[in-house]
Amino acid sequence: MKTLLLLGGYGFLGSNLLDYIDRFKLDDYRVIVFDKFPKHPHSLRFKCVQKTYSGDFSNENHIEQIFKEQKIDMVFHLLSSTVPVTSDNAIYDIESNLVPTLRLLNIMERHDVKDILYLSSGGAVYGDFIQKVHNESDAVYPKSSYGIVKLAIEKYLLSYAENNGFKTLILRLSNPFGKFHYNPKQGIINIALRKALSNEQFQIWGSGNGKKDYIFVDDFCRIVSQLTERGISTDVLNVGAGHAYSVNEITGIIKKLIPGFEFTHVEASKSDVQHFQLDTTKLNHRLGEFVYTPFSEALKQTLEWEKNQYSN
Amino acid sequence: MKTLLLLGGYGFLGSNLLDYIDRFKLDDYRVIVFDKFPKHPHSLRFKCVQKTYSGDFSNENHIEQIFKEQKIDMVFHLLSSTVPVTSDNAIYDIESNLVPTLRLLNIMERHDVKDILYLSSGGAVYGDFIQKVHNESDAVYPKSSYGIVKLAIEKYLLSYAENNGFKTLILRLSNPFGKFHYNPKQGIINIALRKALSNEQFQIWGSGNGKKDYIFVDDFCRIVSQLTERGISTDVLNVGAGHAYSVNEITGIIKKLIPGFEFTHVEASKSDVQHFQLDTTKLNHRLGEFVYTPFSEALKQTLEWEKNQYSN
Repeated sequence: MKTLLLLGGYGFLGSNLLDYIDRFKLDDYRVIVFDKFPKHPHSLRFKCVQKTYSGDFSNENHIEQIFKEQKIDMVFHLLSSTVPVTSDNAIYDIESNLVPTLRLLNIMERHDVKDILYLSSGGAVYGDFIQKVHNESDAVYPKSSYGIVKLAIEKYLLSYAENNGFKTLILRLSNPFGKFHYNPKQGIINIALRKALSNEQFQIWGSGNGKKDYIFVDDFCRIVSQLTERGISTDVLNVGAGHAYSVNEITGIIKKLIPGFEFTHVEASKSDVQHFQLDTTKLNHRLGEFVYTPFSEALKQTLEWEKNQYSN
Repeated sequence: MKTLLLLGGYGFLGSNLLDYIDRFKLDDYRVIVFDKFPKHPHSLRFKCVQKTYSGDFSNENHIEQIFKEQKIDMVFHLLSSTVPVTSDNAIYDIESNLVPTLRLLNIMERHDVKDILYLSSGGAVYGDFIQKVHNESDAVYPKSSYGIVKLAIEKYLLSYAENNGFKTLILRLSNPFGKFHYNPKQGIINIALRKALSNEQFQIWGSGNGKKDYIFVDDFCRIVSQLTERGISTDVLNVGAGHAYSVNEITGIIKKLIPGFEFTHVEASKSDVQHFQLDTTKLNHRLGEFVYTPFSEALKQTLEWEKNQYSN
């Protein structure tokens, strides 16, 4: 029986992990959630959640309190106070993400908790849209403060692994989509599906030919579960589907599912990544036989979930 | 006539740059010094210094005041509140180096000053002692907080160059030695020479066979002068001699200069870089014909300076 502290547990990925633990009755997981909200903002309830702490990640006392009251075995750190498009205030980014993460590591050390999974971002950290397939030992060119802070956190985690006996698993995620995705500003697939369901026109930035790697959130949960079932080992891993799709391909699939779907092209944002794919060789080597959900099937399941949201 | 703001102007490298400007009567440079000390701690006077501001780099008002009073054309940022061996307090490192540097960039932007030279560190940023020759497009593995913070600053500078119209020249320096090197904890060549002059035994960490790139500070000044004489252009450049010497080779040369020099081997520090060399192809391409001071000649000149210090 392991006690997992899930930081940012009621966000998109956290909710999916909790739901996954509930669905597959992973009785070896007892989960403590930390989130800025005292309960799930969409009133979801997860059986595996033993207790929820709400507070401010930047407030050291809020985090220390959890470690004083609970015997934590490992930490999944999914928290970010910013998203790429809103991270133009670099100092806020540093003070609300980087510094609190270092304080977290120091708290963990004081309470002898040394296993941590950290959610990084492939797109934000690699940053380069000329080279199409990125592997974990490539040079990195983060463009946004969001990406620079994620990179700095990665480097500090590896330094704590080398010098302080931590085990730090860093996942450089591609673009996740699927259920519990409520953010109206991030996640092109969910946004396009919602537009289609509400008969609103969907805007494609630029030509729509730029390809990116998208990962179905159910696959993400299975991957995290497999990677951590024997505990955490220090590594940096790309986590993606290993395939890239263009926005035009995605809108084409959606159009087949919802014939009334309408879209138009608008001028591209300068900072958007045009071509982006993750080399998942290292991940696949660690997972062994892993069957990804077919992309069209994943889209269909996401559509079903969005439909239920829409009809509620 | 250009006004240069030299941050950390009374440190080892800053003093050498000021002395270089004085010696070569570079009348196009009017220098404003910012340093934590109101005057040079070793009472050196430099003619090119128009005014000295003393204060705390972490205090935004201290920096903004300079830009309010002076029409600055470019900034050389040589400041660091920490050195690799003392940077085990990561939060202090971030709050006293990274955040103030971002505040500096914001102040520069408000005053329409967009040219900055930043002194990074090859050894601290590349971090890897297995691969022996590092070029600027290699993946980086900083091991210390000092190196992680330097890397983050580099990435922010490049982001300001791309998004905010800055020109940012980043120099990844190897190991400098030469006159005005007063730090008793950094700089193996100066330390060994001082030990030799005071008849103290010099301690070599480990086998002494690990080779590193050392650069004579006079060569560094000439390089900076050549790189910036037509203004600053955005780049990341290794700045080293392009040759590597082992500590055993260095102590051998010193022994010839000072026959009484004694040294012994002690156990190596885990975090020390064992093999380290910078690929200076890109630098040499930008400099054209550049003749480095021969290593033995540079050691002799450094010895002469240390002798004068010792006899004073």
